[in-house]
Amino acid sequence: MTLMNRQVLLASRPSGAVTEANFRIVDAPLAALGDGEVLVRNHWLSLDPYMRGRMSDAKSYAPSVQLGEVMVGQTVGEVLESRDPRYGPGDTVLTPLGWQLYGIAKANEITAVDARTPASYYLGILGMPGITAWIGLNEIAKPNSAETVVVSAASGAVGSVAGQLAKIAGCHVVGIAGGRAKCDYVVGSLGFDACIDRKLDAWEQALEAACPNGIDVDFENVGGAVLDAVLRLMNTASRVVLCGLIAEYSAGAPYVHNLRPVLVKRIRMQGMIVFDWKHRSAEAVDALRAHLDTGRIHYRESIVEGLDNAPRGLIALLNGENFGKQVVRLV
Amino acid sequence: MTLMNRQVLLASRPSGAVTEANFRIVDAPLAALGDGEVLVRNHWLSLDPYMRGRMSDAKSYAPSVQLGEVMVGQTVGEVLESRDPRYGPGDTVLTPLGWQLYGIAKANEITAVDARTPASYYLGILGMPGITAWIGLNEIAKPNSAETVVVSAASGAVGSVAGQLAKIAGCHVVGIAGGRAKCDYVVGSLGFDACIDRKLDAWEQALEAACPNGIDVDFENVGGAVLDAVLRLMNTASRVVLCGLIAEYSAGAPYVHNLRPVLVKRIRMQGMIVFDWKHRSAEAVDALRAHLDTGRIHYRESIVEGLDNAPRGLIALLNGENFGKQVVRLV
Repeated sequence: MTLMNRQVLLASRPSGAVTEANFRIVDAPLAALGDGEVLVRNHWLSLDPYMRGRMSDAKSYAPSVQLGEVMVGQTVGEVLESRDPRYGPGDTVLTPLGWQLYGIAKANEITAVDARTPASYYLGILGMPGITAWIGLNEIAKPNSAETVVVSAASGAVGSVAGQLAKIAGCHVVGIAGGRAKCDYVVGSLGFDACIDRKLDAWEQALEAACPNGIDVDFENVGGAVLDAVLRLMNTASRVVLCGLIAEYSAGAPYVHNLRPVLVKRIRMQGMIVFDWKHRSAEAVDALRAHLDTGRIHYRESIVEGLDNAPRGLIALLNGENFGKQVVRLV
Repeated sequence: MTLMNRQVLLASRPSGAVTEANFRIVDAPLAALGDGEVLVRNHWLSLDPYMRGRMSDAKSYAPSVQLGEVMVGQTVGEVLESRDPRYGPGDTVLTPLGWQLYGIAKANEITAVDARTPASYYLGILGMPGITAWIGLNEIAKPNSAETVVVSAASGAVGSVAGQLAKIAGCHVVGIAGGRAKCDYVVGSLGFDACIDRKLDAWEQALEAACPNGIDVDFENVGGAVLDAVLRLMNTASRVVLCGLIAEYSAGAPYVHNLRPVLVKRIRMQGMIVFDWKHRSAEAVDALRAHLDTGRIHYRESIVEGLDNAPRGLIALLNGENFGKQVVRLV
């Protein structure tokens, strides 16, 4: 019997904001399984800001998706059939299979995950976003407990973890998020000391008031006007972890960034991509799992139902409409 | 007898480019010498890009010059009279006395310098610019001999030293300078591998061609469009030493800086101000003196004659018209 597979392909490259017309949904038969390959039924698909970059043909740290190809992305799923001795039917695995219901992966591209934890967590707190937060905070920012840490996109997959880790480290932690509901969550549930609603007119003054000792660390996920406002408040010898620039991904032209504070305040601004830190990811996951198990870190997902809704889910994410880690439930 | 002193005062704050009308030249009697003070006749005045910042009232790492005050600056001069046991008439000293022919300094504000070396060198290669180059290259950029180092304002006081130190370290070194004469000097006399004339239309393509392996270190003195062009060519895990933004100091609005390469290429961009490195300055000066003595570093000054011409000298410097370290001969 040939399995029919549903896939979301990149149909066209966005110019500016992503639209549903940039995607095409198709049904296609699955190929036969080869030696060393594993057939996976995907249960969860991760949606992440980096996907905007892969839809573009601009050169980046990873290749673009080609037109007509399946959109890239991580999934967790269940092994249906295996032609590799390391995996067998029923195993739960983390895969790079992308936006499709089924897929055939090479065995060395996938990772078995511990089924005690909800599988979708490996796309978030125990996966790429969580590891990003842990590495960015502990290896690049390295705040001490007397310092003030600002986190943009504070309710998001990375920001929510980075800020909670900074609270665990004893820092004064101020989030920036879009809208009252997210800010209430960031303070009330995540335990940040304050959260600034960037949709309010006077948000820059509110940020300054919430950081009476200036800013020592900026965990930057947004860029654009948010980054510029934060730079103006940063202290001497402060650090920017440049982790994302979501406000800029769909912009037609680069933003006006005033770099004078970087010079005058001797700021260290460092870009980070989690792929560079594979040698530390097990340590990060162990630490994050321990914080989850002891209830010191709170985790929330924003769930889209069904593969057909994945394009809308990504568009919502890029517009900041998600609330927590954005995932798509496929089964 | 009361000594008459000539001084250059800040008369008004520039809006945009500095003009001679921003200065006022006055003759005033010198005050009497107090205990612990030293009367100095200034021989050389240093002109440096940071002075543009001090003319503005924008908050920076050091206080602004107030209207009607003597313009700030380092000088080297000769002690005429001393009421401190550490100094006596005839001593050559480095001072913060600013734009004036004479001045009274507290003894702990000044430093004796070794008269074997031309006194003006303590304003350049053996002073703040040289130490800046040495620290920025060796402590922040840390290039290895297989790497490509780009230096903007390559014929200037800091850039010329940074690039020569990078050559001594075995790097592939590419300068950026304004005009053919400077570029010829940077390659022919300073020994850089190439120098790109940013006044030519196709300078960005020329820069790319001169850096066939990309750029690992940017020693940035200019900012603006120069920095953006360099960022586009930088390699993964590369470093920007943000030492100056001279192209931006007189601009009405911040430049458009595209920070996407900082994220995508995991660049570390770090602002530096030499004041933070006082604990290392003796080491830097010793190293630079050794390179000068053995002829491994070439040093050139651009000399303005007379205090009255200091305003024109600073304006020329800010316009990139100097050629080597800009100093004013006062005697």
